[in-house]
Amino acid sequence: MSSELTTIGKKLPWPYSPAIVTGKAIYTADIYLPGMLYAKVLRSPHPHARIVKIDATEAEKLEGVETVLTWKNVPRIKYNTAEKNPPNPQTFVYDQYILDEYVRFVGDQVAFVAAESEEIAEKALNLIEVEYELLPAVFDPEQAMKPEAPKVHESGNITGEIPLSVGDIAKGFKEADFVFEDKYKLPIQHSLPLEPHVSVAGFDEVGNLTIWTSTQTPFLVRTKLSKLLDIQLNKVRVIVPNIGGSFGSKQDMVSEQIVALLALRTGKPVKIIFHCEEMFYASRTRHSGMVYLKTGVKKDGTFTARQCRMIYNTGAYASCGLAVLDYGAWEFFSLYKCPNLDLKGYCIYTNIPVAGAFRGYGTPQVNFAVESQVDMIAKELSMDPIEIRLKNIPHQGDTDPLIDEVIRSCGLQECIEKGAEAIGWLNKRKNGKQGVKRRGVGMAIFTLCSGTKPALPEFASAIVKFNENGTVNLLHGISDMGMGARTTLAMIAAEVLGMPLDDIVTCTLDTSSAPYDKGTHASRVTYVGGNAVKLAALRARERLLNCASEKLRVSKEDLDIKDRTIFVKSNPSINVSITNAVNFATFGKEPEAIIGEATVEPVYNAPSFGANFAEVEVDMNTGELKVLRLVSPNDLGKVINPFGARGQIEGGLIGQGLGYAITEEQIIDHSTGKLLNTDLKGYKMTSPVDIPDVDVIYVESMEPTGPFGAKGCSENCMVSIGATIANAVYNATGLRIKELPITKNKILKAIKIG
Amino acid sequence: MSSELTTIGKKLPWPYSPAIVTGKAIYTADIYLPGMLYAKVLRSPHPHARIVKIDATEAEKLEGVETVLTWKNVPRIKYNTAEKNPPNPQTFVYDQYILDEYVRFVGDQVAFVAAESEEIAEKALNLIEVEYELLPAVFDPEQAMKPEAPKVHESGNITGEIPLSVGDIAKGFKEADFVFEDKYKLPIQHSLPLEPHVSVAGFDEVGNLTIWTSTQTPFLVRTKLSKLLDIQLNKVRVIVPNIGGSFGSKQDMVSEQIVALLALRTGKPVKIIFHCEEMFYASRTRHSGMVYLKTGVKKDGTFTARQCRMIYNTGAYASCGLAVLDYGAWEFFSLYKCPNLDLKGYCIYTNIPVAGAFRGYGTPQVNFAVESQVDMIAKELSMDPIEIRLKNIPHQGDTDPLIDEVIRSCGLQECIEKGAEAIGWLNKRKNGKQGVKRRGVGMAIFTLCSGTKPALPEFASAIVKFNENGTVNLLHGISDMGMGARTTLAMIAAEVLGMPLDDIVTCTLDTSSAPYDKGTHASRVTYVGGNAVKLAALRARERLLNCASEKLRVSKEDLDIKDRTIFVKSNPSINVSITNAVNFATFGKEPEAIIGEATVEPVYNAPSFGANFAEVEVDMNTGELKVLRLVSPNDLGKVINPFGARGQIEGGLIGQGLGYAITEEQIIDHSTGKLLNTDLKGYKMTSPVDIPDVDVIYVESMEPTGPFGAKGCSENCMVSIGATIANAVYNATGLRIKELPITKNKILKAIKIG
Repeated sequence: MSSELTTIGKKLPWPYSPAIVTGKAIYTADIYLPGMLYAKVLRSPHPHARIVKIDATEAEKLEGVETVLTWKNVPRIKYNTAEKNPPNPQTFVYDQYILDEYVRFVGDQVAFVAAESEEIAEKALNLIEVEYELLPAVFDPEQAMKPEAPKVHESGNITGEIPLSVGDIAKGFKEADFVFEDKYKLPIQHSLPLEPHVSVAGFDEVGNLTIWTSTQTPFLVRTKLSKLLDIQLNKVRVIVPNIGGSFGSKQDMVSEQIVALLALRTGKPVKIIFHCEEMFYASRTRHSGMVYLKTGVKKDGTFTARQCRMIYNTGAYASCGLAVLDYGAWEFFSLYKCPNLDLKGYCIYTNIPVAGAFRGYGTPQVNFAVESQVDMIAKELSMDPIEIRLKNIPHQGDTDPLIDEVIRSCGLQECIEKGAEAIGWLNKRKNGKQGVKRRGVGMAIFTLCSGTKPALPEFASAIVKFNENGTVNLLHGISDMGMGARTTLAMIAAEVLGMPLDDIVTCTLDTSSAPYDKGTHASRVTYVGGNAVKLAALRARERLLNCASEKLRVSKEDLDIKDRTIFVKSNPSINVSITNAVNFATFGKEPEAIIGEATVEPVYNAPSFGANFAEVEVDMNTGELKVLRLVSPNDLGKVINPFGARGQIEGGLIGQGLGYAITEEQIIDHSTGKLLNTDLKGYKMTSPVDIPDVDVIYVESMEPTGPFGAKGCSENCMVSIGATIANAVYNATGLRIKELPITKNKILKAIKIG
Repeated sequence: MSSELTTIGKKLPWPYSPAIVTGKAIYTADIYLPGMLYAKVLRSPHPHARIVKIDATEAEKLEGVETVLTWKNVPRIKYNTAEKNPPNPQTFVYDQYILDEYVRFVGDQVAFVAAESEEIAEKALNLIEVEYELLPAVFDPEQAMKPEAPKVHESGNITGEIPLSVGDIAKGFKEADFVFEDKYKLPIQHSLPLEPHVSVAGFDEVGNLTIWTSTQTPFLVRTKLSKLLDIQLNKVRVIVPNIGGSFGSKQDMVSEQIVALLALRTGKPVKIIFHCEEMFYASRTRHSGMVYLKTGVKKDGTFTARQCRMIYNTGAYASCGLAVLDYGAWEFFSLYKCPNLDLKGYCIYTNIPVAGAFRGYGTPQVNFAVESQVDMIAKELSMDPIEIRLKNIPHQGDTDPLIDEVIRSCGLQECIEKGAEAIGWLNKRKNGKQGVKRRGVGMAIFTLCSGTKPALPEFASAIVKFNENGTVNLLHGISDMGMGARTTLAMIAAEVLGMPLDDIVTCTLDTSSAPYDKGTHASRVTYVGGNAVKLAALRARERLLNCASEKLRVSKEDLDIKDRTIFVKSNPSINVSITNAVNFATFGKEPEAIIGEATVEPVYNAPSFGANFAEVEVDMNTGELKVLRLVSPNDLGKVINPFGARGQIEGGLIGQGLGYAITEEQIIDHSTGKLLNTDLKGYKMTSPVDIPDVDVIYVESMEPTGPFGAKGCSENCMVSIGATIANAVYNATGLRIKELPITKNKILKAIKIG
C-alpha cells in the first residue's frame, strides 16, 4: 500500500446520516410480516413477591388474543440475558428464568401476551388475574449485604466479589506521608436510546427462526435463543436493521426471547416495541452504588498505596454485573502508576431494576471516585491537580499492572498538557473565586480498553467480496448502533483497496451470512473489527493484484492501487482499472471470485487515554450550576474519521457524560420499590440548554497494533465527566460534592453546610 | 474423504417440501414494506402500432394514484431482458426500451401505474388515453423472412442467423444411398409456473435499491437494473425468497424494472404481481417455428450427411433467441455421430409475444424433428428404430462434433437397452395394430448440456461458513425454483463435511452476501454449482482438520470425518466432535473462523443423455390419444438424490414434456394478432387425467469431472417427449404427425387423409 493515506483520517460524512435524521432509515419497527401479532408484557407492581395464582382465562377469551404465556407454560431454563460465548456462568450468573414464580422488582416480567394489535394486547394484560404473596424487599446494596437482609435470590445477595491486588498494600500505606479516605456515591443512570427495545420474530417454512432485532450482539442472541427455545443454532437467523442508539443497553437480550417464544407458540410472526415508560423498568441501567477509596501518598505527591472497595448494585438479576466490576477494577488499576494496589469489588442483588452494560461499563463510577480524590489530595499537598497527575500517570513503555502488558501507545501526558492550554488552566484556576456567580475549572483523566482482551476471548472476522464491476460488499458481524461503525470499517477497506468509500457497501448484518462476531461493545469495533477488515481487504487486494499482474504482465510487487486504478509503481501510465481487473478475474479464462476473508485476534488490549477539562459557573444564591465549556483531548491512536470520532466524543461528553454528572438519576421509593420518575420530565437528560461549548482535541499516539494506528473510541471520553465537573465546582466554590449527579439542590445543601 | 458415501445417493426428502405444499413458505408476494404501492401495466390492444398521443392526466388525478410512467418519461436505454454478463449484444440483441413509442404485439407494454392498491392501479389504467397509429403486422416467421413483409424492427425481421457446419455436406449426400427430407412444425408453449412474475422494490436510506423478486438470475437482475436506473452496481441488492416454479421464464427480467423504476420515481416501495392472463402476454414462451431436415443414409443405416434449417419465431423482441438457436444446433449436432453436418438457424421477429428461455432451451423443437425423422428412416430401411439409433449414437470416448471435446461419460446405449426392456419393446412393437383402439410403443433419445460452456463463460462460487457450534451456513448465488437446488448443493457439502443434511442451512439468496453467480439455467446447478460447493466444503474441511489435528495431536492426513465426528482413521476411538473442534478454533488461543470459499470453472460441458419410451393408445374413431406409460432411463451421472431427480424427471416428462407433445398450444388470430386462449380452460396443460404410469431408470455413468460423478438433471428428459409420442402414435396407427401438439383433431384429420 502507498504510505500516503487517501481515506483514513479524512473528514468524511456518514453516508447514513441524512436518512437517519430525516426519518427515512429502516428500523426493526418498520418490519412487517403477513399475519403478524403484537406482544405486550405484564409487569409486577411489587418489588418482591411470589405469584400464588395466575389465571389468563379471561385474557385468552378476548377477541384477537392469540396466547398468554406465564411462568407455568414457558420453558424452565435458567439463563443470563448478558451471557457471552463460550458460556461462563461464573461471570454471567444463571439467575433468571424467561418467566418465574417470583418477581423481584417493580416492573419484573409476569406474563407475555400476543394479540392481533397492540391495543388488544394491552387490554388483555388487565384481564390476567394475579395473586401475589408479598415478600420483604431491599433496595440499598450495603443494606442488602447484611446477613439479616431479605434475600433477593436464595443464594444470597452477594452475586459475586472480586479481590485483586498487586504489591503489598500494608507496606504501601506504611511508606506514605499522608493517607486519604473517602466515600463516593453513584446514581442509577438510564441509557434511553431514541429507539427502544424492538424485535420481530417469525418461523419460516422449515422451522427456521428469523428475528429482526435492535441488538448489539446478534450472534449472542442467536446462541441464547437456540438454547432457550431448544432450536439448533444454525436454524436461528438474526438480522439487524438500523439501530437507533443503544449505549450498552442492547447488549443484553431483553425483547428477543419474548417474541421468539410467542412466535413458536402461536406459529405466527410476532413484534414487540417497548414503550417509553417500559424502558425505565425493563432496559439495563448503569450500576448505582458506592466506592470507598483509601490512598497513601508521599509529600511530593507520589502514590505509595491505593485501595478501593466498590459496591455495585446489580438490581434483581446479575446480567453482566461481575464483568462490569472487572472493568471498574481496570480503571482503578490502570489510571495511575503505583506499586501497591488493592481492590475488592462487590456485585449486590437488590429489588430494583436490573443494571447492566452501559457506555463506560463500570468505569465512570470508580473514575468519579479516583479523580475526585486525586483533586482533594492535590489540594491538601498544595499541588496543582495537573502536577500531581503528571507525576503518577502511565506512559508508553510502562506496564499496565492489571493485564501485565506493556503499553505500546499512550498520549495521556500530551492530552493533559494540550487540554490545560486550551482551557486556559493557569489563568482560570487563579481567578479569585468571589461574588454570587463563581467560575472555576476542573479536569480529570480517563483510560478505557479497546476490546475485551484479556478478560474474555477476543477476535473478529470479516469478508471482503468484490462485485464483478469492481465494487465491494463488506460482511462483518458488527452492529452499527448509529455511531458509524459501518462507515469506519468501510473506510479501512477503502484505504487498503485504493477505492472511494462509495464503492463499498456493507451488508445488512445477518448471522446467516456474516462471519461470527462477539458483537459491538467494549470499544472493540475499530481496534479489533478494524484489524479484521484490514486483513480481509489485504487478502482480497492480494488476489486482485495477482489478476492485474497477469493482465499487465508485471510482477505483483511492482503494483499499487489508487483511485480505482491498479498501476505500475515505477510507471503509472501502465495501469488497469479495478473494474477491468475484476472483470478479467470474473469472466476471464480462469474465473475466480475475488474474496478476502480473515479472522484476527488482537495482540493485546490497546487502551485509549484522555483528559476532560471543564469550566463551570455556580450561582452561590441558587446553587445553579452552568457548564460553560468542555475541552476533551483524546488519545484514540490514529483517528480514522475525525467527523465520526467527534460525534462519538460529543455524544459521550454531552449526552451520557454531562447527564451522569449533573442531571440524571432514577429515584426509587425505598418503602414501595416504585420508580418515581419514569418519564423525561421527571428523569432529566441533558437538553440543548445544558450544552456548553465543546473542544475536541485529537492526540494521535499511533498504536502500532491498531489498524492504521487506531484504538477504541466510543466510550472513554464520558468516563471522567463526573469528576471533571466535581473538580471544577470545587475550584469555583471550594465545595466538594462526592455524590453524583451534582444537582442544584446538592450544591445548595453544600453551600448551607459550608 | 471416506470412499463410502453417507449422504450422496440417498433418497432424502426435500426439507422445504412440507411447507411448500401446505402454503407456509414465504414467496415474494408475501413481502410487505411500509407505505408500499402496487403497480399495474397498461398493455397494447394492437399487434403493431405507433403511440401518437398518450395522456395520463386523468389517471394521475385519481385518488391514490402516485405516478404513471409512459415512454415519454422513462430512461431511453436500449437493452435486452435476457442479457448476460459480460454483455454480448451480438447474441443478446439490444432491441427493447423500458417503454417505447412503438408497440409490437398485443400485450406489449404501454404504461406503468403505481397506486395505493391494485384496484386503484387497475382503474387508473382505463383512464390513460392512448391514440395509436396502426401499422401492418406479421405473425408467421417464414412470412416475416420475406423482403416485402412488414418490419417489426427497423433493422429487419431476421434477428440473427447461425451457420454451422462440420465436414463436407455435399460429399456426405453423395455417399448416401437414401436421402430424406421433411418439415416439422412447433407450437408456442407457455411455462406458466404456479407463481407468476412478482417483484417488490424499495430504496433504503442511502439510496441503495433492494429488490425482492422471483428470478433465476439475481446477479443479472442486479447488473441490468444498475444499467437501466443508472445506479452503481453495489447499491443494488437482489433478494430471492422462495420461487414457485420458473422453467426458464424467470431468466428474463420481466417485472423487476417496472417496480424499481416506479420506486425510484415515487420514493416509495412498489410491488407488482402479474395476474394469470398477463402471464400469457408478458412472460416468455417457448420458440414456435419450423425445422427442415435433410438426412443422407447408407443402406445399413449409417448416417452420411445431416442437414438442418431451424426457423425460430422470437416474437417482438430477441430476448435470448440467438442463444436458444445455439442450443438447438447443439442438440442437432450431438445426438448422432455423422461426419458431415450442416445447419442454418434463423431467429425471426414477428408481432407475437416474446419467446425466450424455456426448459430445454431450443432443443425440444429440433429433437422432435430429428427423432421423428430417424423413426421414419428406420421404417424405410426396414430397421428397428432402436437398431438404427444404436448404430449412430455417441459413446464415451467419442468427440462431440460441435464443441470438439471428448465425451467423458455416456450411458446412452444402456439407457436405450434398459428402456426397451422395461417397456417390453419387442413384444409391443410386434402387436398387430388392428381394431378401434390401437396400441403402440415409441421411443426417442435426447442429450442436453450441463452448463453453458463453451458458448458462454461458465463458473460458480460458494462459501461454506461454520457456525461456532459446528453447523454450517452455505452461501451461493443459485436460485432454487422449487426443484431442490438448495438441497442438492447442501447434500454435497454434507457429504464432504461428514455431517447430516440438517446441520447445513442455505442462506437466503442475496446478492449482497452471496458470491457472484450466473444464475440457475442450462442445467448447470448440480454440475457447475455442485463442484463449487464441493471445493468450498473441501477447503473448510481442510481448515477444520487442521484444528482437529492440533487438538488431537495427530497428523491431519490420519483424520477423517463421519457422523459429526473427526476421528483417527487407524484408531477411531481417538476423536473429537465437529462441534468441539470448531469451538476450539473459534474460542481457542488462536481464534479462526472456519470458512471455505471456492470458484470453480468446469473442465468442459458434460452432457447428460437418455431415452424416453412411451406406450400409447389411439381411438381410430375419435382420434383420442391416451398415453398409457412412460419409461425414462436417464444418464445423469451419479444421482445426488434419487427423490429429487425423480421429481425433476417426472415434472419434465408429465408437465412440460407431455403438454408440449399432446395438449399445449397458444393460438393466435393471424388477422388481429390477438391471443385466443389466455386462460387454463382454453390453453390446456396436462392434468391428472393425462398422467400415465412413469418408470424412471437411472443409468449412473459417473462423470469424472462432476461432483461425486454427477451431471445436469433438470431439463433433459423433457426434450424428446414430442418425438417419443409421435413415434408411438405411428407405431399404433401408421400415421405420421409432424406438427406438435398431437391433438385429437390432428390425429382425426390424419386418419381421414389416411
